[in-house]
Amino acid sequence: MDDRIQRHAEILVDHCTDVAPDDNVLVRAPSSADDLVVALYEQLGQRGARPTLSWTNSRAGRAYARAMDEADFRPKDHRLAAMEETDVVILIRGATNAAETSDVDPEKGAAASQARQPILEERLDKRWVMTQHPTPADAQQAGMSTAAWEEFVYDAVNRDWDAQREFQEQMVEILDPASEVRIVSGDATDLRMSVEGMDAANDSGEKNMPGGEAFTVPVPDSVEGTVFVDVPFREGGREVHDARLEFEDGEVVECSASRNEDALETLLDTDEGARRLGELGIGMNRGIDRTTHHMLFDEKMGDTIHVALGNAVEECVPEGREFNESGRHVDLLVDVSEDSFIEVDGEVVQRNGTFVFEDGFEG
Amino acid sequence: MDDRIQRHAEILVDHCTDVAPDDNVLVRAPSSADDLVVALYEQLGQRGARPTLSWTNSRAGRAYARAMDEADFRPKDHRLAAMEETDVVILIRGATNAAETSDVDPEKGAAASQARQPILEERLDKRWVMTQHPTPADAQQAGMSTAAWEEFVYDAVNRDWDAQREFQEQMVEILDPASEVRIVSGDATDLRMSVEGMDAANDSGEKNMPGGEAFTVPVPDSVEGTVFVDVPFREGGREVHDARLEFEDGEVVECSASRNEDALETLLDTDEGARRLGELGIGMNRGIDRTTHHMLFDEKMGDTIHVALGNAVEECVPEGREFNESGRHVDLLVDVSEDSFIEVDGEVVQRNGTFVFEDGFEG
Repeated sequence: MDDRIQRHAEILVDHCTDVAPDDNVLVRAPSSADDLVVALYEQLGQRGARPTLSWTNSRAGRAYARAMDEADFRPKDHRLAAMEETDVVILIRGATNAAETSDVDPEKGAAASQARQPILEERLDKRWVMTQHPTPADAQQAGMSTAAWEEFVYDAVNRDWDAQREFQEQMVEILDPASEVRIVSGDATDLRMSVEGMDAANDSGEKNMPGGEAFTVPVPDSVEGTVFVDVPFREGGREVHDARLEFEDGEVVECSASRNEDALETLLDTDEGARRLGELGIGMNRGIDRTTHHMLFDEKMGDTIHVALGNAVEECVPEGREFNESGRHVDLLVDVSEDSFIEVDGEVVQRNGTFVFEDGFEG
Repeated sequence: MDDRIQRHAEILVDHCTDVAPDDNVLVRAPSSADDLVVALYEQLGQRGARPTLSWTNSRAGRAYARAMDEADFRPKDHRLAAMEETDVVILIRGATNAAETSDVDPEKGAAASQARQPILEERLDKRWVMTQHPTPADAQQAGMSTAAWEEFVYDAVNRDWDAQREFQEQMVEILDPASEVRIVSGDATDLRMSVEGMDAANDSGEKNMPGGEAFTVPVPDSVEGTVFVDVPFREGGREVHDARLEFEDGEVVECSASRNEDALETLLDTDEGARRLGELGIGMNRGIDRTTHHMLFDEKMGDTIHVALGNAVEECVPEGREFNESGRHVDLLVDVSEDSFIEVDGEVVQRNGTFVFEDGFEG
C-alpha cells in the first residue's frame, strides 16, 4: 500500500480523533476510498477500537431520492441510534462521479438533508473528522491528472500540524476579542458582521483534514451587505456559478447566480437557518496553492475567506448565546488575493492576501 | 441496468421482506454488489422505506483482525443500537476475493464472531434475508465463467416461489410430526437424531434467497453417529475439505479433515454451542443442478441434506423447548444423490436423491 495513504490514516485516528481502546468508531466512506478504509481499519485494530463501516453510495442515493415522494423523507431511527452510541466519526469523501446526483430534484435533496438533521446534530457532539481520498473523478473536477491530484491532496494532508497551529493562532488572537469584521473584495463583495462575544477557533486539522483556517461565528441578525462567491460551489450535484447574496439583518434578502440559480434558491429554502450565516472562516493553509473546486481544500487556502450558510459551528458559541441552526452548512468562498482587505474593528488585518503578521504586509 | 438485477431487487423487498413505508431497512453489502444495491435503493424509495447502507469490506476486516489483539474483540455498541431500531435486514454477499481472510488467525476470526453474537441474536428477531450478487471471484470459486455464474444465480433466484413452496410443503408435512430421523450416505455418513416436538419449516425464499429447503432443529443431546461432509465449506477464508465429525450425546467428540483441520477445530471451539447441531435441512430446489462451493446455493440443491453446527433456527423451536445457542451457524453438506437414504420414523422418505412423493421413487 502507498505510504501516503497509511500516513493519512495515522493522522486521522491520531491527530484528528485521538482514537482510544474500545471507542465505537463510525467510518463513512464511498467504495472509491477502499484503500484508505483498509489503512484506517489497520490503525483502528492496533488501537483496539470497535469500528463499523457505513457506505456512502451516490448512485444508490440518487436512485432512492428519485423514487421517493418528497413528503416521505424522515429521520432514520437506526442511523440515529447508531450515532448516539458512537464515540468517533470519520467521514471520507471521494467521488466516482461528482455529478451523480445532478438529476435529483433539488427539493428532494433538501428534504433528505432536513431528515438528516437530528443525526447531524448528534454527530457534532462527537469527536469527528471529515477528509477526502483522492479519486480520478475528483481529479477531473479539479482539472488535474490523477497523479497530480494525489500529490496535491497528500501535500495538504500529510504535514506538520503543530507548526500550522502556531501560524494560525496569530489570526485567532485577532478574531477572538473582535467585534466588527468587514470583508471587501473588488466591487462585488462588501460584507459586514459582528462577531462580538463569539469564540474564535483554530482549525489545525482536527475536524477537517486538511485543516487550515481561523474561524468564528457571526452574531445572528448582524450580517449586512453583499457577498459575491468567486469559486463555484456544488449543491445537490450541480455547480452554482457566480452566486451573489445580499444580506439585511442577517438574512439573505436577494440572490442570483449565473448557473443553477434554482439550486441556490432551494438551498436557501431548506429551513429558516439556511438563509443566515453560521460561520466566518479565514483560509490560512499556505500548502494549498490553488483552488480545485473542492471546498474542503479551497476554504483552507491562504488567499480566501468563506462564510457558511446554515448551521453555526457550536464550538465558537459561548453558553447561553444565540446562534443560527439549520440542517445545512454550505461554505461560500471569496477570493481575497487581489484588490481586497479584511478589517477588524476598523483596522486592516489582511490586504491582498497578506496577513498583518506576514512579511510584505502593507497596512 | 440488467433486468435480472432489478427482478432480484424486487423479490428481496417484496417476497422476502415485505418492506412497508417507514420501515427502517439495513442493507449490508460489499462494494462488488453495487448494481444490486442501486436497484434495491430504487425499490426502497418507491416503498417510502428508510434505508441505511453498511459496507462489508473483507480487505478492511482482514487488516483490522490482524492488527487486533485477540482479547480485544468486543461487541460494537453502535452496531447493536442500530440493529435494535431496524425492521428489515437485507444481507448481500459477493466476493472480490473469497480467500481475503485466509491469513487471519482462525482464533481471531472466532473471537470476532463471538463479539458479533448479540447483534446476530437481535437480527434474527427482524425480517431479514441473505442473498448473493454474482461476482467474478465467486464465479471463479464455482469454476464457472462470470456469465455462466450470473445465469446460474438468476435461475436460482428469479423464480416462481409459490410453486416452490407447494412442492416443499410435502416434505414439511413429513418432518413436522416426525420423531427420529436417520441419514445414511455410502459408508461414511450415518447420522441419527430426534426432532420430536420441533416445528418443521418451509424455506421458499424468505430468509435465504435463493430458498429451497425443508428444515427443522435437532433435539439437543439427541444427535448420534457420523457425518462426512461431501462439499468443502469455507471457514475464516479457508476451505475445509473432507471433514468428518463424530457425535455422541449431541456433541462432536471427534473430528478430522484432509485440509484446514485447524480451521474446523477453531470453529468447534468458538463457544459451547459450536460443537452441537442447530439445524437439519433437506435441499429441494430442483433449479439448482450442481454444487458450486457456495453454501447459500449448495444447501438448497435437491440431492443434498445439510446439518448446521451452532445456533438453532429459532422459528422451529416451540416456546419453552431447549435449543442450541451459539455465535456461529455453519452448514455442512452431505451428498445424498447416490447410495443413500433418509429415514423418518423407520420409513424411507428419500432414496438416492428421489423423494417419496416424486416419480421414480423406490422405497
